Parts: sequence; C-alpha cells; structure tokens
Amino acid sequence: MVKIRRHLHENPELSFEEVETPKYIAAYHEELGHEVRRNVGGRGVVAVLRGGKPGKTVALRADFDALPIQEENDLEYKSKVDGVMHACGHDGHTATLLVLAKVLNNLKDELEGTIVFIHQHAEELAPGGAIAMIEDGCLDGVDVIFGTHLWAVTPLGEIEHRTGPFMAAADKFDIVIQGKGGHGAQPHLTKDAVVIGSQLVMNLQQLVSRRVNPMEAAVLSVGAFEAINAFNVIADTAKITGTVRTFKEDVRALMEREIERVVKGTCMSADAGYSLSYKRGYPPVVNHKEETDFIARIAQDVPGVTKVVEGEPQMGGEDFAYYLEHVKGTFFYTGAQDENWSETYPHHHPKFNIDERAMLVAANTLGAASLTFLKEAAKKEEAAVKK
Amino acid sequence: MVKIRRHLHENPELSFEEVETPKYIAAYHEELGHEVRRNVGGRGVVAVLRGGKPGKTVALRADFDALPIQEENDLEYKSKVDGVMHACGHDGHTATLLVLAKVLNNLKDELEGTIVFIHQHAEELAPGGAIAMIEDGCLDGVDVIFGTHLWAVTPLGEIEHRTGPFMAAADKFDIVIQGKGGHGAQPHLTKDAVVIGSQLVMNLQQLVSRRVNPMEAAVLSVGAFEAINAFNVIADTAKITGTVRTFKEDVRALMEREIERVVKGTCMSADAGYSLSYKRGYPPVVNHKEETDFIARIAQDVPGVTKVVEGEPQMGGEDFAYYLEHVKGTFFYTGAQDENWSETYPHHHPKFNIDERAMLVAANTLGAASLTFLKEAAKKEEAAVKK
Amino acid sequence: MVKIRRHLHENPELSFEEVETPKYIAAYHEELGHEVRRNVGGRGVVAVLRGGKPGKTVALRADFDALPIQEENDLEYKSKVDGVMHACGHDGHTATLLVLAKVLNNLKDELEGTIVFIHQHAEELAPGGAIAMIEDGCLDGVDVIFGTHLWAVTPLGEIEHRTGPFMAAADKFDIVIQGKGGHGAQPHLTKDAVVIGSQLVMNLQQLVSRRVNPMEAAVLSVGAFEAINAFNVIADTAKITGTVRTFKEDVRALMEREIERVVKGTCMSADAGYSLSYKRGYPPVVNHKEETDFIARIAQDVPGVTKVVEGEPQMGGEDFAYYLEHVKGTFFYTGAQDENWSETYPHHHPKFNIDERAMLVAANTLGAASLTFLKEAAKKEEAAVKK
Amino acid sequence: MVKIRRHLHENPELSFEEVETPKYIAAYHEELGHEVRRNVGGRGVVAVLRGGKPGKTVALRADFDALPIQEENDLEYKSKVDGVMHACGHDGHTATLLVLAKVLNNLKDELEGTIVFIHQHAEELAPGGAIAMIEDGCLDGVDVIFGTHLWAVTPLGEIEHRTGPFMAAADKFDIVIQGKGGHGAQPHLTKDAVVIGSQLVMNLQQLVSRRVNPMEAAVLSVGAFEAINAFNVIADTAKITGTVRTFKEDVRALMEREIERVVKGTCMSADAGYSLSYKRGYPPVVNHKEETDFIARIAQDVPGVTKVVEGEPQMGGEDFAYYLEHVKGTFFYTGAQDENWSETYPHHHPKFNIDERAMLVAANTLGAASLTFLKEAAKKEEAAVKK
Repeated sequence: MVKIRRHLHENPELSFEEVETPKYIAAYHEELGHEVRRNVGGRGVVAVLRGGKPGKTVALRADFDALPIQEENDLEYKSKVDGVMHACGHDGHTATLLVLAKVLNNLKDELEGTIVFIHQHAEELAPGGAIAMIEDGCLDGVDVIFGTHLWAVTPLGEIEHRTGPFMAAADKFDIVIQGKGGHGAQPHLTKDAVVIGSQLVMNLQQLVSRRVNPMEAAVLSVGAFEAINAFNVIADTAKITGTVRTFKEDVRALMEREIERVVKGTCMSADAGYSLSYKRGYPPVVNHKEETDFIARIAQDVPGVTKVVEGEPQMGGEDFAYYLEHVKGTFFYTGAQDENWSETYPHHHPKFNIDERAMLVAANTLGAASLTFLKEAAKKEEAAVKK
Repeated sequence: MVKIRRHLHENPELSFEEVETPKYIAAYHEELGHEVRRNVGGRGVVAVLRGGKPGKTVALRADFDALPIQEENDLEYKSKVDGVMHACGHDGHTATLLVLAKVLNNLKDELEGTIVFIHQHAEELAPGGAIAMIEDGCLDGVDVIFGTHLWAVTPLGEIEHRTGPFMAAADKFDIVIQGKGGHGAQPHLTKDAVVIGSQLVMNLQQLVSRRVNPMEAAVLSVGAFEAINAFNVIADTAKITGTVRTFKEDVRALMEREIERVVKGTCMSADAGYSLSYKRGYPPVVNHKEETDFIARIAQDVPGVTKVVEGEPQMGGEDFAYYLEHVKGTFFYTGAQDENWSETYPHHHPKFNIDERAMLVAANTLGAASLTFLKEAAKKEEAAVKK
Repeated sequence: MVKIRRHLHENPELSFEEVETPKYIAAYHEELGHEVRRNVGGRGVVAVLRGGKPGKTVALRADFDALPIQEENDLEYKSKVDGVMHACGHDGHTATLLVLAKVLNNLKDELEGTIVFIHQHAEELAPGGAIAMIEDGCLDGVDVIFGTHLWAVTPLGEIEHRTGPFMAAADKFDIVIQGKGGHGAQPHLTKDAVVIGSQLVMNLQQLVSRRVNPMEAAVLSVGAFEAINAFNVIADTAKITGTVRTFKEDVRALMEREIERVVKGTCMSADAGYSLSYKRGYPPVVNHKEETDFIARIAQDVPGVTKVVEGEPQMGGEDFAYYLEHVKGTFFYTGAQDENWSETYPHHHPKFNIDERAMLVAANTLGAASLTFLKEAAKKEEAAVKK
Repeated sequence: MVKIRRHLHENPELSFEEVETPKYIAAYHEELGHEVRRNVGGRGVVAVLRGGKPGKTVALRADFDALPIQEENDLEYKSKVDGVMHACGHDGHTATLLVLAKVLNNLKDELEGTIVFIHQHAEELAPGGAIAMIEDGCLDGVDVIFGTHLWAVTPLGEIEHRTGPFMAAADKFDIVIQGKGGHGAQPHLTKDAVVIGSQLVMNLQQLVSRRVNPMEAAVLSVGAFEAINAFNVIADTAKITGTVRTFKEDVRALMEREIERVVKGTCMSADAGYSLSYKRGYPPVVNHKEETDFIARIAQDVPGVTKVVEGEPQMGGEDFAYYLEHVKGTFFYTGAQDENWSETYPHHHPKFNIDERAMLVAANTLGAASLTFLKEAAKKEEAAVKK
C-alpha cells in the first residue's frame, strides 16, 4: 500500500489531466480479474468485484488527482513533476482502495453481493469528476456508497463521522459596481462607486443576520474590495468578490436570490449599474443517517481505530456530495496525523503529508463496512424471505 | 405708529382667520384717500397711492397675521386674545407701513410714480397669503417690491441685506417603511422595518455628502424615527419624518428626486414596501442683486440706521419669496433688539418683543427706498428721452 | 387527574404569588405519606418518596404558576380569577405529577431508590423559582432529573426530545443614545441621535454575520427604535431595545460583550454618550445526551406514545435550564394537541387549552423513565458489585 | 514678453530644482536697476522698485516653476527638457511680471510708493515656496499684494475675481485598517477589514452631511478602497485613501479632527487597529473684500479687458493663499483661452497652452492695479493730512 502510494506521489497528475494514474489503476484491477471500465465520465475508472453469493451492491470511492503546488517536502518519494503535488492525500486514497480491492478479491467466494470501486478523477477542480462519472453510470445498481478522506489534522486512529451536512457548499460571487468616476472635489458630477460598494457590503451583512433561519448555518464573506484610484479621484467602478457557504439547498438558493436583490436595490438607490455573477461550487456533503450510524457502529471494532467521534461540519467542499444525492451513503474522515510530527501542515500546503499507517485504518474501515453491510443485508433478506 | 402697533398687538388674529385687522387697515388707507381693494386673495388689503407725476410703481409689503401662542409678556398692551399673540412682529410691520403711507401721502404731489401698499394675511401658515394675493393681481403694474422684517435678534439701527438666497426653502418628508413584523427570534420570517429604516437613514446622508454640488447649501435632517414595539418583536413598520432645506430650485428638486430614489432602492433591496410624501413649504427668498445693492446704498444715509451689513442666509422660511419670483425686489432685516434688554427672546417665543423704535427705522428705510427709487427711475427716463 | 387539573385551572395563581396551589400540592403528598418540604426557595414544594430498596435518586419536576391573561375559553372549569389564567398548561403538569406520585407510591416497596417530586413556583417570571429552589436544596442527593412540557402545538401521542440545546437563552438589551438635539436646519450644532442610532442598528448586524461562529445559532433583533420629534428637529436621544437569543454560554457572553463594544465605538465615532443595559433571561435548556437518548428509548414502549421524534430547538425560554446545570437530565415535550380541534391556540393565548389525555401520556413517560432508570441503575450497581 | 515666455517654456525647471530661471529673473531686474535679493526662502527672487515719491508698498507675485510632464505640443518653442514642461502657465506669469517691471520702471519718478516683485519658486509642490519666502521677509513692509493666474479655460479678455474663498484647501488622508485575516468560511476567527472599511466609508459621509455647517462648502471623497484577496479569504487590511476640500480653517480643522474620531470609533467598534495620516495641502485662497472690489473696479477700464465677472470658487489649490494670510490682497484669473482653438486642454495637460495675448491683459491689469492703488493711497494720505 505504501509502495503504491509513493509511486503515485512521485507521479502526480492535475485534475482533468490524469493519464497515467487511471491507466495504473485500471491495470491493477484487471490483474485482479475485476470488470473494469476506463474513461468513465472522462478519466475515471470503475472496477467491479462480483461476490460468489447474491446480494446488495456497495460502492467505495477514491479520488486520484493532484494539485498545482510545488512540493517542499524533502522525501525520497517527492513529486517528480514540477509544480504538481499530491497535497491532499488522494494518492493515499487510491492506494488504500487498490489494496483493499485485492484483499476483498480474496474473499470473493464468500462475498454476499457486489463491490464497485469508483476511482474518480478531478475532485480538486470544479465542476469535478463525480458529476460526469454518475452521468456515465458509475452508480448504476449501487445500493450504498462509502468514502473517506485521510485527514492530516486529526490524530491517527480516529474516525470522524456525522449525520447530515458535513461539508459545505462553497460558492463564489463577483460584483462589479458601475458608477461614474470624476474629480474628488466634484461628487455631484459622479456616482461614487466606493460609497455604493461600501453600502453594499454593509447591506449584505443582513443576509445572514436577518434573512437566513438562525437555526441554519450560512456565511457570506466579501474577500476583495477593489477600487484603486488616486486620492483625489472618485471611483468609476468597484469590484467586490466573495464566497457563500451553506449546508442546505434552500438556504443556498435564498442566499443567491437575496444577493441579487440587495445588489439591485443598492445600486438602484444610487442610480448605478452593476454586473453580478454567482458561481455555484460543489453542493454540501449531506450524510445519510442510517449509513452514518452504521459506520459509527462498525468502526468501533475495526483494528487500528482507537476513537470514533462525531465530527464538526467543515466548510470545505467535496464532490462526494453528488454521489449522496443519488444513493444512500456516508463520507467520513480517517485520522492521518502522526503524533510524532513537530508540526502539522494543513491540506493543500507544500509540506503536507500523511501518516501512511492511516491508509490501513481507512482500508480496514471501508472493508469492514462493505462486508458487514452485505452480510447484514443478506440476513435481512433471508429473514424477510422466511416470513 | 406705536399706538397702532399696540392696538394690533392687543387684538391679534390667526392666519387665515383675520377679520378686524384687514378692516382696520383698509379704513386707515381709505381715510388717506388711497384706492383700496379689500379681500385681495382672500383677506389681504391693497392700497394705492398715485403720485402727482408719472413714473414707476413701487410695492411695499407688510404681513399682519399672528401666532397661536399664549403671550407671557407682562405689558400694558398685552394680547387680549387667549392663545393668540403677535410673536413675530407683524403688528409692527403693519404699523410701520400705515404710518409710512400717511407720510408718503403728504408728499403725493411731488411723487414721481405710484406706491402700492400690500398688506398680506397669513404669512405664518403654509400655503400663505402671498400666492393668492399675487393671483388676485396685487403685483399688477408693480416694477419693484421691498419688504423688511423687524428682527429682534439684531441690534436696533442695523440693516441686514443680502443678494441672492437669503431665507431657505423648508420642505417636509414623511416616509413609512412597510416591512413584515414577527417574533424577534425569527428574523427570516420577517422584513425588519427597523433595519431597513436604519439603512435608509444612513443612505440618505449621501444626498448632501455626494449628490449636491458642494458649493450649494443643503440640509436633510431626519427628525423622527418611530418604531415602537416590544423588545422581542420585529417591527412591521417604521415611520421616518424629516426636513429638507435648500436655497435653489435645482438643488431642491434634486433632493426631492433623490430621496425618492434612495427610498425606493433601499426598500427594494429588502423587498419591503413604502409610502413617501414630500411636501414643499415656501420657496427660498432670493433677493435680486440690483435692488439689494440699492437698499444697501440708500440705507447708509437713512436716519436711525447706524450700520448696514450683509446678513447671513437664514434657514427659516418666508412667503415674501413668491413676490420675488414675479418682480424685482429685495427683503431685508431691520434690527429691533433693544440694547437694554437683559435677555433677548427669539421670534415665536411667548416673551418675544421688539424695540418699537425699530419701526421708525424701518419706515424711514422703506420710505427712502421708495422715493429714491422713483426719483432715480424718473431721472433715467428723462435722460433716455433726452438722447 | 382531570379533576385535579380542572380544580387548578379554576383557581390560577400568578408567579411569586402562589398560596393555595402549593398548599394543595403539599397536602396531597402528605396524604400519600411522602416527606414534604414547603416554601422551598420561597413557594415551592418538594416531596420525597423513598422506595423499599436502596438505589439512585430521580427527580421529576412540574411547575404550577399561571399567567396574567384573561381567559376567553367557554369552559365549565374556566378560570374564576379575573385576568389570571393557566394559559401554558402548568395546571396539567401539576395534576400529572400528583397522580403519578400516587401511582408510584403504590409501587413503593419494589422501588429501587428514591423519587423526588419538585413542584416549582414562578416559571413564567424571571428570575423564576428554579434558582431559589436549587439554592434551597431541592436537588440535594438527586442523580437525574426529568421534566416535560405539555405541548399544545404537537399532536397527542408524540414525544419530542433533543440532545443539547433545546430551548434558547432569551436576553433583553436597552440602549439609549445621548446625542445633542437642535434645529433640523443646523446639524452642525447637534449630535444627531437618529443617525447614530441607525448606524448602530446597521453595525449590530455584524454580530451575527461576522462575530458568531456560523455553526452556532444566534439572533439579535432590535424591536424598537424610538426617537419622536417634530419633523424639523434633530433628535436629542434615541432608544433602541431588542433581544438576543442564543443556545450556548460562550455565544451568549460574546453577544453581550460585542454589543457593548459596538455601542461604545459607534457612539465614540459621533462623540455621543449612551447607556446600555443587558438583562439576561433564563439560560438555554441544554439536555444531556445519555438521559435524552434514554427517554427516546424508553418512550418507544410507553402506552399512549405513538411517535418519538427529535424536536427542533425552540427559541422560547424555560427555567428548567437551571436544574440541568446542576444534575444530569433532560426536558422533553409531550404532545397535547387534540386532532379534533378546528384551530390550535398557541401557548399564552387567551383561548389556549390542552388535550387532557396528554397528561396520561406524560405521566406514563415520566413514570416509565423513573422506574426504568432506577432499575437499570440497580442492575449496573449489582453487576459492578459482582465483579 | 512673448520672447521671454518662450525662452522659459523651452527651459522649464521643476519645483525646488530651479537654478537657471531665478538667475535669469534676477539678472533682468538688476539690469533695470532694481534692488534684487536672490535665494529668498531658498530659490525665490525679490526685486524692489522704489518710486520717486513716498507712498505705500504694493507687491506683485509670479511663480516660475514647471511640472514633471512630457510636453506633447508641437511647438517651435517646445520644452527642451525631457519630462518637464511649463504646463500651468508659470512661464507666462514670469514674462508678464518682468515686462511689467520694465514698464513700471519707466514711470519710476512719478511713482508714489514702492513696488515689490515677488518671483516665487515651487508653487506646484507642497509645501511650496511661498511659506519660506514669507519667512525670509519677502512681505516686509508690503501693504497689499496682487496676483493673477493665466487661466486657459476662461476666454481671453475676461477677468474673474471673487471676494472670500476662491481656491480650496486640498488635503489628503490615508487610512489603513488593521483587521485580522482568515478563511472566508470562518468570520468569527477574523476581524473583517472589508466590512470595517465599508462601515467607515459610510460613517465618513456624515462629516459633510451632519457635522459641517451647511452654509460652508466641504467635500470628503474616498478615492481608493484597496483590499485585494482571494474570494474565499477575509481581508487582513483595507487601505482607504481620499481627499478633503474646504475653504475655511475652522471647517478644515473640524474635518481633520472628525475623521480621526470616526476612524477611531469605527475601528474600536470592531476591535480593529488603524493608522491614519492626514496631510494638509495649501490653505484656501481667501481674497480680501476691499482689494477684490478694487480689482473688479479698476479692471473695467483696463485695455484688453472685455469682461469682469465674479468667478466661482475653484477646488484646486494655490500657495498664494499664504501671502493673503499675512497682508491684504487678492488673487484673480486672467482669461487665456484662444477663441480659435478647436479644443482647450486643461491645466497640467501635456497639450496645455495659453493664448499669449493674455500676458498683456494680465500685465495691464496688475500695472493698473499697482498704479491706481498707490495713487489713491497717496490721495487719502493727503486728504488726511489736510484735515
């Protein structure tokens, strides 16, 4: 597992530019005798392991793309590609799933159902690979899906799960206020874009404070306010850019709608023009209750797992969200922080790394989840038949 | 003059309710043999003194209404009418003009033109008496108009003049924001009228700071913000009332137009409704340059005048403004502050009074203005004819 | 049970004015042979039922005060006291607990521990009766506490529980901005309290939008903005009153602290003075996980219970919160809505009523909780001893 | 006059770097036999012409520095210095004054008093040359000062004068708000500099709308708002830069003081830091009434002057302001726009030019002003002596 991961780490490929990685993955599964579909939704790989006994179908997903970051780690297996790095652990995800596939393949005859291995490209870059793979049928016949993220800021041995919203929808908006520039001494001949923009920023505060149900989480942050002029000039335009984070579709839609309303009204009150672009990122990852409770239960007894906790929702995005819109399932974190590190680098950092032992924990958990799920489903079926 | 003034002071009549005062005035002029028109524009009186020689026509105006104020002065000639008082000196204006008429009548034969005495009702209450009197012809044939206000906060002997805007237009606006009330804990089900109103008040600041030419004077003040609710309720409506002061029609029109724009945009940005009423008060008193310079010049030599100064524009209103929209002329202040007073009470105060000697100064100035104007006009005419 | 409830309903007593109700309760328990303490924390009653076997101690709480509301129901057992009414179901709470006490008393010999019946006065009026009763020892020796509210907007047969924050802390703030009044035309001589107040309302929006963790629920609503003046006057003062709702102490403390900061800074920026009063209402009701899960579990099998669901947090306040700060326990809702009602009146409404059958459901659930808790505790104890 | 001007135009020198220009000027005056002081206040030149008769002392001022602008005119006498250009007409000012000095020198014997020629360096660059020249005594013994600006946007033949404030004080402020940056999804861990900055811009609107006397002109414009960040980042700092324009010292001081107050309070309300720098440019040019009326009067009869008008105040700055703080005097515009130009380029434009005939008009006006002033002063003196 470590060998595979290091191989991938040395040879990272950017989102939507993956060529060798999917080849490698496909070859591995083919060697195991799995049914393999290449180029699923573009560059994804789907491998199927059919068990010896009839039953349900479990999907396990691992993403395999890397990031446009120059690695700063001093490692034997450091990235060989300039400016590209597996800085989010997807190399580990892939290694985990491949080796797990091999192990499960050994149990093939006893397997009461089917396991689908979804190797997804392009998780890091919107619109992501998940949408296209789903459209290309990767979830056909799937009853449940499990996925995990090796999480370098959580201690090794810990499994974090959570029912409901777990990772946020992360959207982006760009506003350009079109005022009318002029001399700083003659405001009456202008439409001051800095004042209009400031008014807008103030008014936007009310979306969270007044318009969203206070029981729902939502964030609107303006990251940039750009109106660069000489001190004695009145601004012609102001650019305002920001992000919206939500966990529910209705809240997200409300934010999008209300931003437009506030921008429109604010500009109208100053007789100014505007352009507004609202770009949706991934939807929120909303874990299903039964499957999350299931993971929380079975993780207790998985070798290597020392702690199973309910995690706090994260504001980061993840296109695993799309799978959960189609089938039941859950996404959880597998702690990958080495207790001996003097410093922990966050995901997407040039010095990011994982404790490689976490891959085993992840594989064990996903494996146990698959086997237990199929076994329990078979039992229920049996019980139902008996009645 | 003092006798007449005290008689009027004892018998004050409210705006648009004057009965005895105009009778008294008309009788006085009739006794002098002047042509008299009663009920001009309702309750006004116009008397005409035709000189023995041909020439121009000068109008002199005095208002004669009182105020709904209970006099607190302890005077022999205190108001006999409960709750009504000459607290702005209009009694003095009338006495001044009547006695001046008598004096000018004595010079009748030498008079090179005509003098029209305009005794106006209802200056204190919008829409005022001036508009109706003008419509009723009081300015027909008039070449120039002069008026003065006895000014109790300026020392006796002083004449204050100013070319251009001298007294402001004073308008009123009423805004009701129609939000949607609800429980303080459920902002998302409401449209919070207090927040919308606050946003509106902030946005209205920009009218003066950004939209009016900084070389022009303008004021917008919100006097009242009314949203009375329990602490845990969100306001359904907010009432916002205020005033706008300007000196020029284009600035005034801009303020009126921009208030509507700001209210509309602000409410739109919160999906709220509104009603807006903008009520114009008197227009600004804008003195004509030539006539103002004329008064400044001739006042120098008027007996009783000790100082002739350019006065600061005042934010109070005066419907003399309407006359100046129709004919050339000027409105000036005649100091009426007694230097021996321990305290000076402002106009409209229950203890307001004037130094009665000021009436003589006013009469002298208006008289000198009339005579000099007619004489100089005659000379010019003569000179023109000679050529 | 119905008889007792109707008796109480006819004879309601206001918070901190209860006299006959506690007497009635105490007499009832004394007749059952319970140890009874009167005037606990003022007007509360605490009765103790000691079981025949050793074990843990369970407390059950019911409040018994009424509201200053004129009943508008047309009932046989309508309130006999003008302007006072049991409009929140506390009559039902008391009847439930008394009859449950009688039933449990019958099982006395088999009881493996102790049951404490806390009859609390003054729940409706801050600071409430709970604080004083706790200080007076009502929780001494208690291992766990359970309480329920008959909930007229939830169908009969339903039990609503929730781990963690279930009812909000409801605080009140009063701000007076001390500006400097003056004439509407002379803003430069004033400190405009309406503008300062509006600025403050806008700035306060940032507490929820920027300073509170978006994962936490918090509300700040300004209910009243009061600055009543003539249209041409600039406001001397503005009164701003509102509420803050939170579920966690740190969020609550942050809101309180940040309001002060914003008020201080906003007034400083306008050189104005202010007074600020922040009054804390009840703390949030925060249910303990183990006890809540326990109720959710045992309620499944309680006769009369048809549905057990996780309820949404409510923004209303409840001084049961204080008990949960001292001992483990949980507070849940017992549905009391009659499916045959054509209209349901909310709590505190003059036509409020409950489906009286809900009392039996509540008694059954509290009874089952008490007995099961004691039995399971005894078993654990036994098991521990064996080891 | 044209020759001198073109010589200077070809050889422009930047503010505070003038070497050849003052040499040239000094030599010219020395040749005329005037008393000459070089290096006055650094690089200025003061020449004195003592008349044959006793009397008052008149000062005439001309500035002689150029601008860091690359000339784009295609002229025979185009600037020979790369990147430096007489783009504001100071070459013309100097030529005007030199030739006028020659003419006045011819009238020396009849001259009833003294004429001081102040050739000032560095008008274009704060702190300007005037301050230092005054400190170095250039106004010693001076009774009155006159100055003019050749004004390329006013038609040839026109003289524009104005009593009181004529050119504004132009100040600059730089504010840096020091918030605390962070992730766009975690506002509670940050102090959002964009929101604080926006709040500040809104609050600054009140300086003009509420704190300055509405009868006074004042402008505050924020030219730049700079907070450049990724869309999903919360700003650490925001830079806000702008200008303040005023005509009176008390208004100017109030603006400076209130900006500090608003910045301080606004940042305090968000617990943020700030730095504020307020840099004063030149004070306003405030013309004295008597001297302005004098110019308006005598200009009527000056050869070449076709129109004498009251000019509108200008928001540009001019360090002639300092002279008027020390002695009586006035500054006026001399129209220098050629009616045949198809396009007029504003001052400081690379294609700026003047109608050279305007120099003669300026010389005539300044000459007439000097001679008339001295003559009238002598008469008064004589009259006073006779009494």
